[in-house]
Amino acid sequence: MSEVIDSSINNLRSKIKAIRFAMLTTLNDDQTLSSRPMTQQQLDDNGTLWFFISDESHLARDITSHPKINVTFAEPADSIYVSISGNAEVLKHLEKAKELWSPAVAAWFPEGVDDPHLSLIKFTIHSAEYWDSHSNKMLQLFAIAKAAISGHPPTDIGEHEKLQFN
Amino acid sequence: MSEVIDSSINNLRSKIKAIRFAMLTTLNDDQTLSSRPMTQQQLDDNGTLWFFISDESHLARDITSHPKINVTFAEPADSIYVSISGNAEVLKHLEKAKELWSPAVAAWFPEGVDDPHLSLIKFTIHSAEYWDSHSNKMLQLFAIAKAAISGHPPTDIGEHEKLQFN
Repeated sequence: MSEVIDSSINNLRSKIKAIRFAMLTTLNDDQTLSSRPMTQQQLDDNGTLWFFISDESHLARDITSHPKINVTFAEPADSIYVSISGNAEVLKHLEKAKELWSPAVAAWFPEGVDDPHLSLIKFTIHSAEYWDSHSNKMLQLFAIAKAAISGHPPTDIGEHEKLQFN
Repeated sequence: MSEVIDSSINNLRSKIKAIRFAMLTTLNDDQTLSSRPMTQQQLDDNGTLWFFISDESHLARDITSHPKINVTFAEPADSIYVSISGNAEVLKHLEKAKELWSPAVAAWFPEGVDDPHLSLIKFTIHSAEYWDSHSNKMLQLFAIAKAAISGHPPTDIGEHEKLQFN
């Protein structure tokens, strides 16, 4: 990874690190979109975001059928709004599962990392956008409002950055 | 509208009323998904959610090509996570624009409701789901964690309700 990419990943990590739940949006077979909260586990140095999942879940099937998903992080108190587009894959990866393991995960997979349904979502980030007003709340809220109302990203004031990972 | 539907709309309204920005997720022509924050203007009594938009925006074109979109509301401080699926339409509706008009909107459409590009997103809700821990934070956070980690919606504890509007 280049220093530019490293910097982009660190920047994205700083935005989302305090936001426990992401909303994962997937495409269904009938071309509708649905979302659900998921606990983020790790944004690694390769620009991959990890989640735990059961391979029996409806979401696992949706991802396998339609791997191009979107992940958002929202924290109104800090006016942080992040959109990440990329490719998701449901896989078994014992070494990674052990690395990410915590008591919170154990509550849902009582057999531990050897639970036969325990799987991971490996979400490879293609692009990430954020609307962040932390540095200058008034200006930034205004910038967000422009994006929010007109559908145009705020280009004149405030911090709006699109990170391209590939 | 039946009393059941009225009650569902009021319930949904109570969840999202304090959350100014929704994340709108759309499908692009290349089958990728993208999201952006948008200011909610009103959830009306018919189960329609309204936003302002410029008809020149990329988002307006995306919605016209792929009207089945998803809207999420997230408020970590109250552990509110809402997912709404439905059909969006970009339209001109002078009467509705006047009803929703505010100084915040005027900043982006300086010609007022007569701005030639001022349009509305009419988002007709088909289903709404929420994960709400306000009534019992500990239990509900646990319920969210189950949904979040396993991809299963929490059915045993906490409040998880799916509203069907049609």
